[in-house]
Amino acid sequence: MTTTLVSAQERMQLARDASRSVGLMTDAAKADLLRRIADAIDAEVARIVAANAEDLARGHEAGISEGLLDRLRLDEVRVSALAAAVRDVAELPDPVGRLLDERTLPNGLLLQKVSVPFGVVGSIYEARPNVTVDIAALALRAGNAVVLRGGSAAQSSNAALIDVMRGALAAAGVDPEAIQTVDDFGREGARALMRARGLVDVLVPRGSAQLIETVVTESSVPVIETGAGVVHIMLDETAPLDWATDIVVNAKVQRPSVCNAVETVLVHEGAAERLIPTVVTALQERGVTVHGDDTVQRLATDVVPVVDADWATEHMSLDVSVKVVADLDEALGHIRTYSTHHTESIITEDDANAERFLAEVDSAVVMVNASTRFTDGGEFGFGAEVGISTQKLHARGPMGLPELTTTKWLARGNGQIRG
Amino acid sequence: MTTTLVSAQERMQLARDASRSVGLMTDAAKADLLRRIADAIDAEVARIVAANAEDLARGHEAGISEGLLDRLRLDEVRVSALAAAVRDVAELPDPVGRLLDERTLPNGLLLQKVSVPFGVVGSIYEARPNVTVDIAALALRAGNAVVLRGGSAAQSSNAALIDVMRGALAAAGVDPEAIQTVDDFGREGARALMRARGLVDVLVPRGSAQLIETVVTESSVPVIETGAGVVHIMLDETAPLDWATDIVVNAKVQRPSVCNAVETVLVHEGAAERLIPTVVTALQERGVTVHGDDTVQRLATDVVPVVDADWATEHMSLDVSVKVVADLDEALGHIRTYSTHHTESIITEDDANAERFLAEVDSAVVMVNASTRFTDGGEFGFGAEVGISTQKLHARGPMGLPELTTTKWLARGNGQIRG
Repeated sequence: MTTTLVSAQERMQLARDASRSVGLMTDAAKADLLRRIADAIDAEVARIVAANAEDLARGHEAGISEGLLDRLRLDEVRVSALAAAVRDVAELPDPVGRLLDERTLPNGLLLQKVSVPFGVVGSIYEARPNVTVDIAALALRAGNAVVLRGGSAAQSSNAALIDVMRGALAAAGVDPEAIQTVDDFGREGARALMRARGLVDVLVPRGSAQLIETVVTESSVPVIETGAGVVHIMLDETAPLDWATDIVVNAKVQRPSVCNAVETVLVHEGAAERLIPTVVTALQERGVTVHGDDTVQRLATDVVPVVDADWATEHMSLDVSVKVVADLDEALGHIRTYSTHHTESIITEDDANAERFLAEVDSAVVMVNASTRFTDGGEFGFGAEVGISTQKLHARGPMGLPELTTTKWLARGNGQIRG
Repeated sequence: MTTTLVSAQERMQLARDASRSVGLMTDAAKADLLRRIADAIDAEVARIVAANAEDLARGHEAGISEGLLDRLRLDEVRVSALAAAVRDVAELPDPVGRLLDERTLPNGLLLQKVSVPFGVVGSIYEARPNVTVDIAALALRAGNAVVLRGGSAAQSSNAALIDVMRGALAAAGVDPEAIQTVDDFGREGARALMRARGLVDVLVPRGSAQLIETVVTESSVPVIETGAGVVHIMLDETAPLDWATDIVVNAKVQRPSVCNAVETVLVHEGAAERLIPTVVTALQERGVTVHGDDTVQRLATDVVPVVDADWATEHMSLDVSVKVVADLDEALGHIRTYSTHHTESIITEDDANAERFLAEVDSAVVMVNASTRFTDGGEFGFGAEVGISTQKLHARGPMGLPELTTTKWLARGNGQIRG
C-alpha cells in the first residue's frame, strides 16, 4: 500500500485522527497488533533487504564510512532481530490505565489520576533503520500514533519498513495512518514536524549532538532530549585497584560507541601512583588511547597529552581522558563544568564521599562502585528503551514504555459544586 | 540589600551556583527559611505597600483598567495574606527525597529513583505581585533557586518583595542569589531567561494566552505551559435539571475570571427543551450574558446570537456560549475542535456516556457530574498551586510542589561491570 501524497501537515493531522482510536485499544489488541507487525516484517524480509540494498548502494557511492554503512545495513538476520524486538515489546505490560493517584474530596468527589497515551509521538533520528521499527512499536504499545523522520541515508529502508508496518495495521483493522513518515518531504518534513504543536504531543530526537541541539532549539513541540554522554568516573583515594581497573575498562571498552561509555577518568592525587599505572596499562592492552595530564604522562607510558577540548568531547571511540584531581571537590567541579548530565560514577570505599557524590552530582544516573554501562533501559529491567533522557522534564535517564504516556485526572461526582 | 548590577546572564549563573547549596538543604531548614521570609514580609509591610503605591500611581497615569489595578494592589491585609501563604507552604511536606522506584539487579546493583530539585526554576508572569512571592516560596520549598521576570506594571512592588526575601535569605545564612530577578533588564531580561538553557532548568509562564504563546515559541528552556481554559460542560440527554443548573451556574458565576470557569455549554437536543429555559434563566438572574445558537434563542429570552469566534474564546467574564448538539459524538467533536485541554465535564445519568466522555476527552481533568471549578491545586488537596498545566509533558492539570522536582537514579554497587 502506498502513502497518499498529501502535505506533511496533513499527514500529521491524519496521525492525530488515528491516535484517537489507537488510544482506546485494549492491552490485548495492542499486543496482537505488534505481533502482526512482527509477522509482516518477517514475511517481507526479501523486500526490506532489497530496499536496504538501494540505500547501501547510494551510501557506497556517496563514500560514507564503513561504520555508518554497518549501522545502515539490514540483512536477513538483522530483519529477523527487528521482528523479534517487536514481539518483545508486545509482551511488555500495558503502560496505559495505571492508577497513579486517588483521592476523595470531603464533598465526595472521587479524583483518579491515570496514565493515558500522549496521542502522537514524533521522532527525528539518523541513519539506523531499526529506530523506525523500535519507535513505532513502542509508540503503538503505549497507545500512540507516531510520525517518523529518519535520515535520508536510510530512506528506502525506512519507506519499506513503514509500508510493511502500515500494511499490518490495515490488515488488523487499525487505521494505518497511525504510522506516518515525513521523510519524503526532506528537510521541510523535519521542520513541519518540529512546528506541529497541537498535532504532535512530544518529539524525541535520537542521534548526534548536533541533531539534538537543532531539535531542542527549533522545536515548538515539547521535546524529550536524549543527549550525548560525556560520562565521568572518579577514582577516589580509597578506590580498590581491582574495582577501579575492571570498571574503567568495562565502561570504556565493552562498547565504546554508545552514550554510557566513559569519556573522562578523574583520579584522586592520593591514589594516582597506586592506580594510574595499572589502569592505564589495562586500557592500553585493550587498544584504548589514553589522553592524560602531566601526572598521568609521568606515571604511565604511551600517554597522549590531553588538551582542553578533550574534557568536553564524547569520543564514541577507544579514547579516554585521564586527569589527576586534588580531592573530591575538584572532581565535583570538573564534572559540573563538563558533564552532560547523563551518568557519573565514583569508585570509593569512603561512605561519606560516596554519599556526597550521589547527592551533589546533577546527572540522570549517579553511581557508586559500578560501571556506567549499566545506564540502559534493558539493564534497568524496562524491557525496552525509548532513549536515555538527559533533561529534567518528564523523564530522566533510561526511558521505558511508561515514559511514552501522560496522565489525566478523572473526576466522578454527583452534583458537586464549589462553595 | 541591593542587587549587584551584573548582566541577566550573570544573574542566572549566580542562581545556578546558589541552587547547589539550596538543593542540599534539609526539610527543616527549608521550612525555617520560608517562615523567616514570611516574617520579613510582615516586618517590611510599610515599605512594600509604599513601593506598590508607586506602581499604582504609574498605572493610574497610564490609564490601566480598574480590574488590573485591583490585581496590582497590595495593602496591609494583602501583604499579610502573602506572608500567611508562605507560612502555609512551609508546612507542606518536603517534595525532595521521595523514593519513587527501587530495584536490585540480578548482579546486586541497587537502583533507587528519588525526587530531587530541578535546580533553577524560572517564571515569566504578568502584573500580579503575589506571584513573585508564591513562586519564590514554592521553588525554595522544593529546593530550587528561582529567576523571576514579572510585569513592568508591578516593577517597584516586585523589586521591594524580592529585596525583602533576599534579605531574609542572607539573614538565615542562605545564599541570597537563590532569588533572582531579571526585571531591571526589561524585555532583554525575558529574552535572556528564555534562552538560558543549561542555567535554568524549567520555565513556568503565568498570564495571558499571548504571554504563554510567546514563551512556548521562543524558549529553548523547557517550558511547563499553564494554558488558557476554554472549558466545556456537556448537558447530556439524561442530565438532571438541578445538577445541570447548579453546576453550570457555579462553573460560570462563582469566579468568572479564572481558567477553570466554563465558557461553553453543549446541550443534547433531546434535553434542550427540558433544560435550556431553566439553565439560561438561572444564569441570566446572576448577571450572565448568554450567547446561544438558533435553538437556544428559540427556547429562552434575551439570548445574544452566538458567533463562531465565541467557541474559541476564553471570556474571563460573565459571558457563556450555549450550543445544542445532536448527540455525544457531536459534543466530543466540538470539544476536540475548541478545547484548550484544561477541564471538561459531562452532566449525565447515563453511565456508558459518562465513561465514553472520561475516556475520549483529551484534557487535563475530565469530570462527570461536577463543577469545573474544582480543577485547582487547593481543591485537589495539594496545599499550594504552581499553576495548572495544560501540556502533557511532566505535569498535567493542577501542579503542586512535587511538580517542581525532577528525579535522579542512584546506583549503589560493589564492583559490578556489564557482561
